[in-house]
Amino acid sequence: MIAASNQPMQSSVAELAARARRASRQLAKLSESARNQALLGIAEEIERQAARIIQANELDCAAAETAVKSGAMSASLFARLRLSDRSTGEMASRIRDVAKLPDPVGRRLSATELDSGLVLYKESCPLGVVGIVFESRPDVIPQVASLALKSGNSVLLKGGAEAAHTNEVLVDIWREALDRFPSVPTDSIGLLRSRTDVMELLTLDRDVDLIVPRGSQAFVRLIAQKSRIPVLGHGEGICHVYIDRAADLQKALRIVIDSKTQYPAACNAVETVLVHRDVAQHFLPPMIEKLREAGVEVRGCPATVALLENWEVASASDKDWETEYSDLIVSIKVVNNLAEAIEHIERFGSRHTESIVTEDRDTAQKFMDDVDAASVYHNASTRFADGFRYGLGAELGISTSKLHARGPVGLDGLTTYKYKLYGDGHIVAEYSSGARKFHHCSI
Amino acid sequence: MIAASNQPMQSSVAELAARARRASRQLAKLSESARNQALLGIAEEIERQAARIIQANELDCAAAETAVKSGAMSASLFARLRLSDRSTGEMASRIRDVAKLPDPVGRRLSATELDSGLVLYKESCPLGVVGIVFESRPDVIPQVASLALKSGNSVLLKGGAEAAHTNEVLVDIWREALDRFPSVPTDSIGLLRSRTDVMELLTLDRDVDLIVPRGSQAFVRLIAQKSRIPVLGHGEGICHVYIDRAADLQKALRIVIDSKTQYPAACNAVETVLVHRDVAQHFLPPMIEKLREAGVEVRGCPATVALLENWEVASASDKDWETEYSDLIVSIKVVNNLAEAIEHIERFGSRHTESIVTEDRDTAQKFMDDVDAASVYHNASTRFADGFRYGLGAELGISTSKLHARGPVGLDGLTTYKYKLYGDGHIVAEYSSGARKFHHCSI
Repeated sequence: MIAASNQPMQSSVAELAARARRASRQLAKLSESARNQALLGIAEEIERQAARIIQANELDCAAAETAVKSGAMSASLFARLRLSDRSTGEMASRIRDVAKLPDPVGRRLSATELDSGLVLYKESCPLGVVGIVFESRPDVIPQVASLALKSGNSVLLKGGAEAAHTNEVLVDIWREALDRFPSVPTDSIGLLRSRTDVMELLTLDRDVDLIVPRGSQAFVRLIAQKSRIPVLGHGEGICHVYIDRAADLQKALRIVIDSKTQYPAACNAVETVLVHRDVAQHFLPPMIEKLREAGVEVRGCPATVALLENWEVASASDKDWETEYSDLIVSIKVVNNLAEAIEHIERFGSRHTESIVTEDRDTAQKFMDDVDAASVYHNASTRFADGFRYGLGAELGISTSKLHARGPVGLDGLTTYKYKLYGDGHIVAEYSSGARKFHHCSI
Repeated sequence: MIAASNQPMQSSVAELAARARRASRQLAKLSESARNQALLGIAEEIERQAARIIQANELDCAAAETAVKSGAMSASLFARLRLSDRSTGEMASRIRDVAKLPDPVGRRLSATELDSGLVLYKESCPLGVVGIVFESRPDVIPQVASLALKSGNSVLLKGGAEAAHTNEVLVDIWREALDRFPSVPTDSIGLLRSRTDVMELLTLDRDVDLIVPRGSQAFVRLIAQKSRIPVLGHGEGICHVYIDRAADLQKALRIVIDSKTQYPAACNAVETVLVHRDVAQHFLPPMIEKLREAGVEVRGCPATVALLENWEVASASDKDWETEYSDLIVSIKVVNNLAEAIEHIERFGSRHTESIVTEDRDTAQKFMDDVDAASVYHNASTRFADGFRYGLGAELGISTSKLHARGPVGLDGLTTYKYKLYGDGHIVAEYSSGARKFHHCSI
């Protein structure tokens, strides 16, 4: 049996957001240790109430099983929904990892004496209230809520309907844990329950500072279209691996297979492999063998099709270069040189993650410098583009925008800064008239 | 006579943007000294061709004079249009100041060894192509174009029609100067000529990375509504000065007068003065005397009106608290304490610039920490909120958004970052399976 929820039941989304805003003002004043202690308390509470979480998750899974049987839910979605005892332990340990990260707020980013007695500081501070809308995966809640609390932000969450029981219990437990820390407002976390709620949330630009949609491309696009609030998310993930003429072909094989098959639905999976013509003849046959072994469908440019005559490779159409398959499909293109590879990436890439495989450091450096993408790699799988792998502790999301935060986003994406100016009756008129002059001295 | 323009005449806006994109790729590879030398060359060229600039400006002014006479143009707009010999000298000297700033690109923001042989760097880099749409003031061109070149960005400009000749010549001279630096692409600067051009520009999200509108609130809002590209700008500037019970009333007077009258049309001018009730009786009479001397219309809350019985102060309506007058009008409210002042600012402020006048350091610190605004001041005029005064060299614009860049924005707003990961055949599967572990070590 699930205990009655401790969350306000009748509040409208606007009221929830207003409470979250008030809570965020309290959060912004908390010391680092108060925020960290609350995180550790939450981790403990999650471990203590693991059985309750699993119980709620079983309810969700039972309903989902019917949906899987009727074909209304995919098996992969179902897999991401199910939690185990290990999952709750991992949740707690991830929260503890976040508590250990350096404090992202109150950092002095610059200090300038503008004139004698007039000193300007630039300091990092929380954004305020962040709304996170995600599909399925209930483990998103502890991940993003811990990042929010660590950085002094309130968070409003809306998860997939298929995980409703699990999400409800996770937020309940979070609030129960916060109840034991009187300085940390319980309303710093809130749960939305319907799609209508989400649509209302997107209009509350006075009380909500950022919306983070996590889910399919179509979902992110919908949220971005409807939101009056700035949205952090990624559109497409069309990533490339370029196999240079000076590539170590063993490394190239490992990297292509990992980039494509380790988790093909991820946005950082490779969609197109670009192969230098000088190594195409040697490289393409073993690559296609490995890819087919892994169940990957291959589509090739005319040169690829010709070189792989005996393999009956399907022809890639122009459409393929601009498609995020999110599946076990890959397109292959033979290029004449590095410049052509970069040109292809510039034209078709989504500026997400791009990798070069080469033993030539100069060529690698040229690729790393010239390719315009959030992440550029030398001799590594595109699948590394992830907040946890980057050491950010957890991931708020991945951004393909160049503004505010780019690539895998952790705590940095949840902070802004403010300028604090200390004077002693200073006025601008004296500077305009020339009576006083700025000296702008870094201190 | 104006020399024939050296700018491509028949290019469509899409073509202009595509050229700017290509130019931005070259710019991104330039060394710091190549960018700085080009800036110094441009400053020299502006001085050398000062007469040509003034001549073009006289043409614009002649047309504008007719518009002023017929009432189609305001005198203040006209004043901002006119350039003098001193103006061109100032343009050149501001460009030289920008050249002297530290290089904003290629900075290593972090370096992490994820595992042995797998190293991640986060490095600042240019945004790419920035579109700047501004009203009147031709001196915006050298200001923003120098920031763009310094940070390795291409820039597309559209100024007010009333400054068409001046803008054309300024961009011509800029391009002529760049012609002498073969490594710096001439197409890194481009001029748009019509409102239709601007509307087309706002749709080119593949080739343009950021739009900066500079002008009236209505103008900024229109651009933001129509743009498919992220917009950096400020909505309203509803700024407050709070006179605390522990204020030095002489400082308070100076600061209120400067904040209101030094340039009332600016977004950082004060709109509402909040006065602690304990000092209201002493402070309000001299303040209103000074304000009226300066031609400022005063509107007061009931307590203000009652205290200033003999001054026949007009009553402020609720509407006043949420109005940006942009004019010689100010509203005054008596508050019971600091909390009430902060509450008023939270409710009605636009999170732009807020100032407290007090001799009590604790009260000041509380205000500085608690008020959520881009700039918070102690004993200083709100008019200091400006990129040049902050020592940013020049100002791209002022942002009231919390994302990407906040407050007066200089070079920082024109950069993003990219992650560079160097591996040696590293794949994610080995970490998923537990065969390898990340150690995430800052280096």
